[in-house]
Amino acid sequence: MASSLISRRFALSLQTNLWLSASACRYVSKAAPKTQVDFDYDGPSMKTSVPGPRSQNIGAINFFCNYEESRGNYLVDVDNNRMLDIYTQISSIPIGYNHPALLKLMANPNNLSTLVNRPALGILPPENFPDKLTESLLSVAPSGMRRVQTMACGSCSNENAYKAMFIWYRNKERGHNTPSDEDLSTCMINQAPGCPDLSILSFMGGFHGRTLGCLATTHSKAIHKLDVPSFDWPMAPFPRLQYPLQEFTRENAQEEARCLEEVEDLIVKWRQKGKPVAGIVIEPIQAEGGDNHASPDFFKSLRNIARKHGCAFHVDEVQTGGGATGKYWAHEHWGMDDPADIVSFSKKLLTGGYYHKDELQADKPYRIFNTWMGDPSKNLLLAEVLNVIRRENLLEEVTRSGKALLNGLYDLQAQNPGILSRARGQGTFCAIDICDDATRNSILLKARDKGVLLGGCGDRSIRFRPALVFKEYHVHMFLNIFNDVLAQHK
Amino acid sequence: MASSLISRRFALSLQTNLWLSASACRYVSKAAPKTQVDFDYDGPSMKTSVPGPRSQNIGAINFFCNYEESRGNYLVDVDNNRMLDIYTQISSIPIGYNHPALLKLMANPNNLSTLVNRPALGILPPENFPDKLTESLLSVAPSGMRRVQTMACGSCSNENAYKAMFIWYRNKERGHNTPSDEDLSTCMINQAPGCPDLSILSFMGGFHGRTLGCLATTHSKAIHKLDVPSFDWPMAPFPRLQYPLQEFTRENAQEEARCLEEVEDLIVKWRQKGKPVAGIVIEPIQAEGGDNHASPDFFKSLRNIARKHGCAFHVDEVQTGGGATGKYWAHEHWGMDDPADIVSFSKKLLTGGYYHKDELQADKPYRIFNTWMGDPSKNLLLAEVLNVIRRENLLEEVTRSGKALLNGLYDLQAQNPGILSRARGQGTFCAIDICDDATRNSILLKARDKGVLLGGCGDRSIRFRPALVFKEYHVHMFLNIFNDVLAQHK
Repeated sequence: MASSLISRRFALSLQTNLWLSASACRYVSKAAPKTQVDFDYDGPSMKTSVPGPRSQNIGAINFFCNYEESRGNYLVDVDNNRMLDIYTQISSIPIGYNHPALLKLMANPNNLSTLVNRPALGILPPENFPDKLTESLLSVAPSGMRRVQTMACGSCSNENAYKAMFIWYRNKERGHNTPSDEDLSTCMINQAPGCPDLSILSFMGGFHGRTLGCLATTHSKAIHKLDVPSFDWPMAPFPRLQYPLQEFTRENAQEEARCLEEVEDLIVKWRQKGKPVAGIVIEPIQAEGGDNHASPDFFKSLRNIARKHGCAFHVDEVQTGGGATGKYWAHEHWGMDDPADIVSFSKKLLTGGYYHKDELQADKPYRIFNTWMGDPSKNLLLAEVLNVIRRENLLEEVTRSGKALLNGLYDLQAQNPGILSRARGQGTFCAIDICDDATRNSILLKARDKGVLLGGCGDRSIRFRPALVFKEYHVHMFLNIFNDVLAQHK
Repeated sequence: MASSLISRRFALSLQTNLWLSASACRYVSKAAPKTQVDFDYDGPSMKTSVPGPRSQNIGAINFFCNYEESRGNYLVDVDNNRMLDIYTQISSIPIGYNHPALLKLMANPNNLSTLVNRPALGILPPENFPDKLTESLLSVAPSGMRRVQTMACGSCSNENAYKAMFIWYRNKERGHNTPSDEDLSTCMINQAPGCPDLSILSFMGGFHGRTLGCLATTHSKAIHKLDVPSFDWPMAPFPRLQYPLQEFTRENAQEEARCLEEVEDLIVKWRQKGKPVAGIVIEPIQAEGGDNHASPDFFKSLRNIARKHGCAFHVDEVQTGGGATGKYWAHEHWGMDDPADIVSFSKKLLTGGYYHKDELQADKPYRIFNTWMGDPSKNLLLAEVLNVIRRENLLEEVTRSGKALLNGLYDLQAQNPGILSRARGQGTFCAIDICDDATRNSILLKARDKGVLLGGCGDRSIRFRPALVFKEYHVHMFLNIFNDVLAQHK
């Protein structure tokens, strides 16, 4: 199984000291040799085009994978093609494939019971559940939050976060938490006041999931929303900034001010319509919608607007959370003590869920509830992932790799002005725009056939979503291959 | 760990031949000794009242559990109380705790990769995924269905099933599957025609989950729905039958006819309101809402009404599916070749998801989609659960145990007419009504302190939801204890 793994030392000796930061046509690693990567391969290895003859390509399926042979940053397909994976299952693999620490954890007989006895966590949690939460999710809780509710996936996390905001808002309106008889009877037949006409304010380009509540706040692509009934909820413009951000501070501040003004207008307007905004939901970086950034000042002002108008503030970190920006949570870059009322997560956290402030705790049992409410086996994995992140200083690595990646993208953009624009990112959570959709898709396929797996986002962007074990030498390996692909499009 | 497991043969010798089917005051097992139960305990063993000193009882939490020590039909808590579990994590444990076959499966090093590398199933499935689906879910597919879509939980399963029905219905309305420019632009801002005013018809007392789409079709308890915005969708009455069903065939047929008439009226009315019914969703037995049954004729007629009016027919088997009624699917008792367009599941199936007819397949990729779309590690467990069900003939056992349980409940009801009424059930999926809510809750707590774990449903029912390994001698053990508890309430 490990036959094609070679000594890291040997592999790296082939790659050192060749990176030229100027306009050289080849980008090769200048990174120092690394330890802790024994489980990684030495580079891509392509046997066929992808999907190959043993694979299939139907519907949304790209190709079939051999997860047993995949390692670290490399995804192996059923045709034994080995690709440097910079998409990582839509940004959901935290520390690479088959990390030895996780394999060891799952092979431990003490954990068998957790794998075969899935509890109804809301009523009958396992003895160690509070400890496992403390070790895992609560050890990285956002500032000001001491409570977390696990859920099975990202959509359920946001759906339940919305419910928590609605419940909080209605109790605030009532001034107490005792519903009237009319509340209790009307809610059973979907009518107000029991099912009130409350709304969640979201942003154009935002993505918060595909179940009916989430979908009413998702505005990224038509195919996600088409034919599904929705709610009349307000949508504000998300700032359309110019990049690099530091070169357009004045223009970007104006654009952000415009959007914030619109947010306040919408809150007032929807209150007047009788559909008050109970909560505002936003991503720290709009991911699916095209990797759209906004400044810490924008988010600080938005947080204040939410507070001023009595709306809860929900930061959706399903894609941004888990370390890819160089911090556990992208909102940490805002530098706020009280960044949000609710922070939802999934993907790299391996379990869905949301953190919340004490006042967003539902006032009675069974209001936020379902059968499983998460999965302790995922908390077990997450606790070990966090151990690995700390032990291997992966957030520092991400910051270092991210700088190399963004600088490399700036260089390539300077050399390919007809193709590339708007390189942007935080940590390794980077993106770049391609001149048009067709070229973008052609680049994605050509890169794949050369052994680099990337994903698109927005209309014509490529998003970079490597695992946290993506090191500087992986960056340089990618830049070399990407440079070759771009040369075919000149 | 196994110190309190004793020889089955010895344990059973204490229980044989004491069951008296007449009106004796003690119910003790007359079941023959069984094999295949080495992993079970010999009976309840209570050290403290529940929750005990090492446990906690906050919010919805009943008590904390020791899943390592739990076995078969017995749940052990952190105070070492061992309870006969007839609620099984809200009906979600298929073959008991720590089944040896599942422990062996999870200890197999070949399965480690599946546990640590969770794929984005919709785009990059593992090589063996089609085979695992064939071995597991597709091997028990409902009549007329060859397709299945996995999801992470029951709510997501129903949310996506509803989306599939909406998409199917709109394409039917269009006469083709090419959306107009207006469809594409309006859907981005939650407006018709892109987000059409379509509805799902549901039933009073029904439960289909707690996310916003599901919740609009859930009408069981106010606490589930209070304060959450909803859709103006039609709700029909679910038949309120008299039990035992065979004694009230004429009255029940009249009641069912009344409900069916109302369904047709609502479909017409909502079409006239401009909110056509795209789908009808119903449970084969309303579970959370109080274990309400309806006859095969009712469901046949309802299926025909759906067909006549061009609505999709969605049977929600999240709680009823997986064998507890004596068949894999409760709807099999209707004896229909074409029972439904969609059948959703979760709980005992260990993964969420839904089966669907070919025409309910979304016409384009990414319409029914999310990051994980299920979890292959759960399919692995399910395949082995199905092996165990077949090898141990568990559906036959369920039918046998279910008959003993229902007959025992009839006897107890005859002896306690002031407390018990409306004993009903199919397989071990049984329920009985208690005179009032307070007595019901007192009985549940007293039974728990005597080592039997039960759950409530509806206003004043007790629901029985044992695992499929609940044998006749477990039934008799339960009836003895229940008889003692009832004696305290006379």
